[in-house]
Amino acid sequence: MTTTTENPAPTAVRLTAVDAPDQPTVTPELEALYRGFESELLVPLWTEIGNLMPLHPTTRAAAHLWRWDRLVELADRAGHLVPVGRGGERRAIALANPSLGGKPYATPTLWAAIQYLMPGEDAPEHRHTQNAFRFVVEGEGVWTVVEGDPVPMRRGDFLPQAGMHWHAHHNAASTPMAWIDGLDIPLQYDVESQFFDFGRDAISDAERVTPDRSRAERLWGHPGIAPVSQLGSRPGSPLLAYRWEHTDRALDDQLALEREGHGGTVEPGHALVRFTNPTNGADVLPTMRTQFHRVVRGAETTPRRETGSSVYQVFDGSGTVTVGDTSWSVTRGDLFVVPSWQPVSFVSEAGSTDSDSGALDLFQFGDAPVFEKLNLYRSQEDSR
Amino acid sequence: MTTTTENPAPTAVRLTAVDAPDQPTVTPELEALYRGFESELLVPLWTEIGNLMPLHPTTRAAAHLWRWDRLVELADRAGHLVPVGRGGERRAIALANPSLGGKPYATPTLWAAIQYLMPGEDAPEHRHTQNAFRFVVEGEGVWTVVEGDPVPMRRGDFLPQAGMHWHAHHNAASTPMAWIDGLDIPLQYDVESQFFDFGRDAISDAERVTPDRSRAERLWGHPGIAPVSQLGSRPGSPLLAYRWEHTDRALDDQLALEREGHGGTVEPGHALVRFTNPTNGADVLPTMRTQFHRVVRGAETTPRRETGSSVYQVFDGSGTVTVGDTSWSVTRGDLFVVPSWQPVSFVSEAGSTDSDSGALDLFQFGDAPVFEKLNLYRSQEDSR
Amino acid sequence: MTTTTENPAPTAVRLTAVDAPDQPTVTPELEALYRGFESELLVPLWTEIGNLMPLHPTTRAAAHLWRWDRLVELADRAGHLVPVGRGGERRAIALANPSLGGKPYATPTLWAAIQYLMPGEDAPEHRHTQNAFRFVVEGEGVWTVVEGDPVPMRRGDFLPQAGMHWHAHHNAASTPMAWIDGLDIPLQYDVESQFFDFGRDAISDAERVTPDRSRAERLWGHPGIAPVSQLGSRPGSPLLAYRWEHTDRALDDQLALEREGHGGTVEPGHALVRFTNPTNGADVLPTMRTQFHRVVRGAETTPRRETGSSVYQVFDGSGTVTVGDTSWSVTRGDLFVVPSWQPVSFVSEAGSTDSDSGALDLFQFGDAPVFEKLNLYRSQEDSR
Amino acid sequence: MTTTTENPAPTAVRLTAVDAPDQPTVTPELEALYRGFESELLVPLWTEIGNLMPLHPTTRAAAHLWRWDRLVELADRAGHLVPVGRGGERRAIALANPSLGGKPYATPTLWAAIQYLMPGEDAPEHRHTQNAFRFVVEGEGVWTVVEGDPVPMRRGDFLPQAGMHWHAHHNAASTPMAWIDGLDIPLQYDVESQFFDFGRDAISDAERVTPDRSRAERLWGHPGIAPVSQLGSRPGSPLLAYRWEHTDRALDDQLALEREGHGGTVEPGHALVRFTNPTNGADVLPTMRTQFHRVVRGAETTPRRETGSSVYQVFDGSGTVTVGDTSWSVTRGDLFVVPSWQPVSFVSEAGSTDSDSGALDLFQFGDAPVFEKLNLYRSQEDSR
Repeated sequence: MTTTTENPAPTAVRLTAVDAPDQPTVTPELEALYRGFESELLVPLWTEIGNLMPLHPTTRAAAHLWRWDRLVELADRAGHLVPVGRGGERRAIALANPSLGGKPYATPTLWAAIQYLMPGEDAPEHRHTQNAFRFVVEGEGVWTVVEGDPVPMRRGDFLPQAGMHWHAHHNAASTPMAWIDGLDIPLQYDVESQFFDFGRDAISDAERVTPDRSRAERLWGHPGIAPVSQLGSRPGSPLLAYRWEHTDRALDDQLALEREGHGGTVEPGHALVRFTNPTNGADVLPTMRTQFHRVVRGAETTPRRETGSSVYQVFDGSGTVTVGDTSWSVTRGDLFVVPSWQPVSFVSEAGSTDSDSGALDLFQFGDAPVFEKLNLYRSQEDSR
Repeated sequence: MTTTTENPAPTAVRLTAVDAPDQPTVTPELEALYRGFESELLVPLWTEIGNLMPLHPTTRAAAHLWRWDRLVELADRAGHLVPVGRGGERRAIALANPSLGGKPYATPTLWAAIQYLMPGEDAPEHRHTQNAFRFVVEGEGVWTVVEGDPVPMRRGDFLPQAGMHWHAHHNAASTPMAWIDGLDIPLQYDVESQFFDFGRDAISDAERVTPDRSRAERLWGHPGIAPVSQLGSRPGSPLLAYRWEHTDRALDDQLALEREGHGGTVEPGHALVRFTNPTNGADVLPTMRTQFHRVVRGAETTPRRETGSSVYQVFDGSGTVTVGDTSWSVTRGDLFVVPSWQPVSFVSEAGSTDSDSGALDLFQFGDAPVFEKLNLYRSQEDSR
Repeated sequence: MTTTTENPAPTAVRLTAVDAPDQPTVTPELEALYRGFESELLVPLWTEIGNLMPLHPTTRAAAHLWRWDRLVELADRAGHLVPVGRGGERRAIALANPSLGGKPYATPTLWAAIQYLMPGEDAPEHRHTQNAFRFVVEGEGVWTVVEGDPVPMRRGDFLPQAGMHWHAHHNAASTPMAWIDGLDIPLQYDVESQFFDFGRDAISDAERVTPDRSRAERLWGHPGIAPVSQLGSRPGSPLLAYRWEHTDRALDDQLALEREGHGGTVEPGHALVRFTNPTNGADVLPTMRTQFHRVVRGAETTPRRETGSSVYQVFDGSGTVTVGDTSWSVTRGDLFVVPSWQPVSFVSEAGSTDSDSGALDLFQFGDAPVFEKLNLYRSQEDSR
Repeated sequence: MTTTTENPAPTAVRLTAVDAPDQPTVTPELEALYRGFESELLVPLWTEIGNLMPLHPTTRAAAHLWRWDRLVELADRAGHLVPVGRGGERRAIALANPSLGGKPYATPTLWAAIQYLMPGEDAPEHRHTQNAFRFVVEGEGVWTVVEGDPVPMRRGDFLPQAGMHWHAHHNAASTPMAWIDGLDIPLQYDVESQFFDFGRDAISDAERVTPDRSRAERLWGHPGIAPVSQLGSRPGSPLLAYRWEHTDRALDDQLALEREGHGGTVEPGHALVRFTNPTNGADVLPTMRTQFHRVVRGAETTPRRETGSSVYQVFDGSGTVTVGDTSWSVTRGDLFVVPSWQPVSFVSEAGSTDSDSGALDLFQFGDAPVFEKLNLYRSQEDSR
């Protein structure tokens, strides 16, 4: 692993005086002034303000869709060609938003990747300031070992892991397993907050066990019930797994309450839950909000926009997703990006290749906590 | 003013397989896999991790110094060549850190500029989500009108202005006036949270008055005393001016207490105060920390590093500043950048051109609140 | 129901000058001064300080035990003699701590009662600022209807209900049911914060249903999962029932983790959980802390004291409880009081009349949130 | 000082069955049941609910007025008869609300006293959990030494002192000095949270100095400016003196802003400021709110009621105060009590004996933070 970033060579400031209604008259004196700015590494606001301070967030990131079957196919090929070990650390393949300069960023703040582990493989232990989670759209057999606590991963499970927790993974099954990782790598890269420590190359035999529940769940996985030995608000959730059976039931309960004439859903036919930190009721991670949507077959959600960006993965069902001016038909596993202040809506409908009658289930992660904590959060519903 | 940012053209992902100890063996199959990644807009972690997830914050931004006399000279020339008005909005000239690609960013998160207003000039009214402040190293005569409240600006004054407050400026004096502006433009550009509204082209005559104290100060400028009609925690400080007489006295008091054998300073000969929001005791702005240092003649401060970046301006005195491996002799008005996790220290000493016996006074602004709120803050003292 | 409290007649101040080492010399002038104080309704500190400002909390309340079988027997007699209805409101019979002047207070801040409802009976709807909860040591068949939401009550269930929520109860079973109520009546009486509103005399037929789960549980009863339609920190828990199956499992999990060599219990053989508000991780009620202890057979807990008082009910098992200098053998249903700053400890042991091999299970409620919020909380472990 | 409170003898519960519309029929069986309750130390709710759970706070405490000239006269006599020293601790004489059973309580939660120190006298050092403050209506010459920091006390100054801070007083002047003390003694007595430690019998010579400003003020007394060496939210204010010059100016500023057509006052002619903790913007003390009112000559305030009680002292001017159904003409130094949920209003008018043209200035302290933190706070304006 190469950890030294070479410092980029100083970049000269380049200023061009142009004739434009809101620009100063181009004269030799102005040109000379601009050359003076350049030599002193200065840039005037009046040539840049439209870009730097737009009237509202503009889509630097593009709405984009990645198909799950293509991701899995490539990940599987990588499984046979690319070893997992110290240095590379993880067999993770990231979504690179086409509008972010070829960088491996799904959005300006979020990193999303498919990770793939072959039978019997281990991913070595490390820790970092980047907040992370795993979400499993299919398969099972991998245990993530967080601070020595083996946590099983199965379809539908959401597994948060706040910054600076030691973690490794091992595949205890006889088949490969894929899942998605979400991290705040771009945000931490931009603000320059990153620390990274290498851990042990191999976890102990005692950690190689495959319990059905993690210790974290045994301590924190009981609704509203906290272990007194572990109390106190923490920046990240101590509950290391949010199991599908609970998420599924919570979503079903909301829809049943709606049918019975009570509140619960966020709009007709649209159930929505948020994964929260049981120590304080806040988001599970200091920088990321994670939610699960269920849209009943036939329903259409109201277009909604918010500051900040999100990545969604279709967990089940099929339908049409619209982000700004773009629409896609989506099915299980597909991943897509919703940039800042772009309206997003869903229609749940039978897909061309499926015959199920179920709902459209969507896992979402976004950077809303960053915006809320910095007093920058806004949201708005558009008319359909 | 051009407010539409053209969406950059999609950038192709480019991956090069290389022979390196921590990289997979270059084979035709690996090359084919990388072409597959490219066509699907995917980037593997194992080629990028050293850059994306470094062992500690690396200096993407450079330590750099700008001389005040050069800034003022160029600003004055701009005062004669560049009108102030709608569109360009402000005659502000920003520090462009040479390691940030020619962008007008002092640091990855902070924008710093000299602003200049000619006698009788007005800067038109607007508001924006970007948090801002003004700091005056010399001169007087401009009133900033914030939400209709005229606030005088004089040497040593610090004037915060949280996001989405309407503001305009007018120079009521017969001489030009310069000051520095600090904003969180780069941060908000990166996370895409910006909103901007144009206000009136001209403030009213009633707002063109020149009171000695703003209404904000008359409500909130009494130590520990809050107006009951205005109570409640707010994200930004309602106190719109922190006057030099108070800052100066607070710094002197700390040093006097130290001389009397009591605590108060942060280390011998080094007084330090923070501007705070009287509604909650937090930083004055949701994203920026602002502080004032006084280092007595002859004292040397301990090198200290923290996550996040700062910009300093020398307010008075002279001395030597060391940031990482770089040292500069500094004097009144000079501005310099301290990047994330770079140690900074000061020596207060007589300058080559001055004969005063005073202390080295430094105004500092940085992005520490972002790091604290996102659980990313770390600091460390190095040995001298 | 009589709601007008007659204002007590003004009480004359009575002061007696005494010869004591720390008292002023008794002289005619002093006597005259004291008469002056009396006539002006004044009391000097120097005669009262030992009582008003003791060196540590002194036991105004007594440690006391009430036997469950006696409570149930009397409640059942009341069930046949005392109707439930508007005015009396509830067939609740309160523990009157013998050191609190005959007032129906279990402790200086807490009210605890057995409530009893005959088959088919309703308790009428009302709401009040007093925070309340129900805990069920045996039986089932009553639904408490909180804001229109019918909540079943069964053995082991804990049912909080924050101030100013409408509530009624109805017994849908063919047998009487008893449970305990805990409220902060004495605290609110002392500080004079009480409001009380009468509701409907009868709940609607739609509310007379007997669902297995309340709507509150369907929205909030999934571990770490919040309904987005209901978000936001609230002073009291929106989860209206904490079911025994979850509490029991959480306690078992802690003890199993301990046996496996991991943390989890508060001390060997002593599992402890706290009921928390899922919106903020705080105590379920603004003024009351509620916890559940499980002490394995044979274990003895460390004497522990804290500021503030608690009431405990034995839920299962038997053993010896020691509070200060007092010890009792306790068995299912027994209730006892632990006054402020009195050490309490438990020994779990087979009782004279039982043959089970189980643990000693104790439900506890106390006023610790009051102390924590007012910066008055202290706790201490004593040596055994 | 006697610090052992004798535990009151157990009080028998006494229950009387009465014929009343909302009471069960009096029968021999009911009488027997009540005897059973008595023997088991039980009290039914249905006989007590009207008293325990009134429809709104009822005035257990009386509105009452104490005349300052009578207090000073008695305090001065005590100054000649009662020594100050260890045991009695303070020459403080408390207001005993005539409706609170002869106890030295101004209200159910608050203790208020005149304290008096003769020339050259010392009050010995101690500390206690009770939160306290001093307020000076006239005179000067005493320094209170808090944690070794000598704090001068002068007319108009407010001096808070949070629980468990060591403090002593010494009169450095040649005249006696009186001031008022406010503490939360009754609240802490009721909930049983009190700790008390004796300190040194005499302060050191170094502490016997008489600086014009305390160290606390030199660190924290600059508006909005915090010493970085002392940061962090604290339960009580680190600013140990709120000087009259600042309070006076803040009140004047509000009234001037009102005259200029801007907000600032709470209602026409009624300026109101609150003393706050600069570390967090909250009330200066965890359990007490302290405020200062200025009502311009001729103005009349809107009757306002809130849960919780307050004590007021007239600082200057004269007028009429109305609390519930009671009105008094008041003048400098007079103290009065406003019980929970009793409306209070003021008319500022020339007194029978004064000729000034000034405003009515009132210092207020109350227990509102207790109510706010426990989610029990309510307020309401009544029509005039």
